[in-house]
Amino acid sequence: MKGILHGVSVGAGDPQLMTLKAKKLIDTCAVIAAPRTRGENTLALDIAKGVCDMSGKDIVYLDFAMSTDTAVLGKTHKLAAEKLILYLSDGKDVALLSLGDISIYSTFSYIAEYIAASGFEYDICAGVPSFCAAAAELKKPLVSGNETLAVFPACSESFDSLMRLNGTKVIMKSAGQVEKIIEAAGGAEIIAVENCGLENERIAPITDGGFGYFTTIIIR
Amino acid sequence: MKGILHGVSVGAGDPQLMTLKAKKLIDTCAVIAAPRTRGENTLALDIAKGVCDMSGKDIVYLDFAMSTDTAVLGKTHKLAAEKLILYLSDGKDVALLSLGDISIYSTFSYIAEYIAASGFEYDICAGVPSFCAAAAELKKPLVSGNETLAVFPACSESFDSLMRLNGTKVIMKSAGQVEKIIEAAGGAEIIAVENCGLENERIAPITDGGFGYFTTIIIR
Repeated sequence: MKGILHGVSVGAGDPQLMTLKAKKLIDTCAVIAAPRTRGENTLALDIAKGVCDMSGKDIVYLDFAMSTDTAVLGKTHKLAAEKLILYLSDGKDVALLSLGDISIYSTFSYIAEYIAASGFEYDICAGVPSFCAAAAELKKPLVSGNETLAVFPACSESFDSLMRLNGTKVIMKSAGQVEKIIEAAGGAEIIAVENCGLENERIAPITDGGFGYFTTIIIR
Repeated sequence: MKGILHGVSVGAGDPQLMTLKAKKLIDTCAVIAAPRTRGENTLALDIAKGVCDMSGKDIVYLDFAMSTDTAVLGKTHKLAAEKLILYLSDGKDVALLSLGDISIYSTFSYIAEYIAASGFEYDICAGVPSFCAAAAELKKPLVSGNETLAVFPACSESFDSLMRLNGTKVIMKSAGQVEKIIEAAGGAEIIAVENCGLENERIAPITDGGFGYFTTIIIR
């Protein structure tokens, strides 16, 4: 019998924000696949380790290129999928971990496509997106009443017009783009939550570019 | 010592999508506050009951008016807050349950404001929003690459222009507005997930108005 690939969201940082289902899936899968980006960073795996015992499991590291070249990315995704297919063919279930919620800007969908085309099954376990965790830390609602919530990456082609929308804006993938964001926000309040739910969490109004990779920016 | 009010997100339907933190908070609070809307509906409480033992706890029902009259709503929120303050003054911690993620279109922020102004503490536990749970059920990403995710209620004043945005649209509070949504969507694919994660879940392309209150609509 073939194994199943589970795409498992592990939330934004605090292991206690993992769902009961995510913990159960990780506990029962023999193989854990963890994305490894920007050098040796394996944050999703570190989060899971906070509440799951990984001893005796096979840990598979998936190295994703931080590229915008679709050919490079396609090759990376194919390599990752092929790594996982070795285990799935062997009848082993695999939990592929993803930060935040896996349906929001994750590489999982590309890998899942390849897995499905190769005749294997997959499913998805939803999780807490970074912006919800950040709002909770701020003790502020993201949206109330009839307000709009717009979530988009700093590199969006429609960045300027999206910044002019009424309502709450969440800017993803903001690394290196903070000056542009400050300028586009005009006078609006910009709050950044860096390393949300982790020991080195930092919440601050944005005034400079000194924020790291795992930063969620909320503009109200 | 005064009690603390915890705003606890319980996710979109499947009790297994509750976070470890939410379960722990509900298990340790002596008092559970549950919104009761549209007659006798207490869905958030029903979800929590799926994984938490409620015996011996005080259950406080908060009746929220489904009104757009801010005076009526304000009175409802004040009454709800005052009900909770009775327990908080008595040193009891209260978990106020909320569907999906509590920072997204929940009444909690109004109650929290009143609680804080009355000198009590509150905090927030983030959860899985309905649209993330729905995307997981559909096995489809909400947004990839540079795409935009826009979340707004069907009654938004900017409904028509928001529907013209590129990217993924999530329409909240869609009850009774399905015809308007179909018209505005033009030819785009409209998927509705009704009662996501519950026994009576229904996933379907929208072609008519036959969807109930707890429906998430995703347009791609």
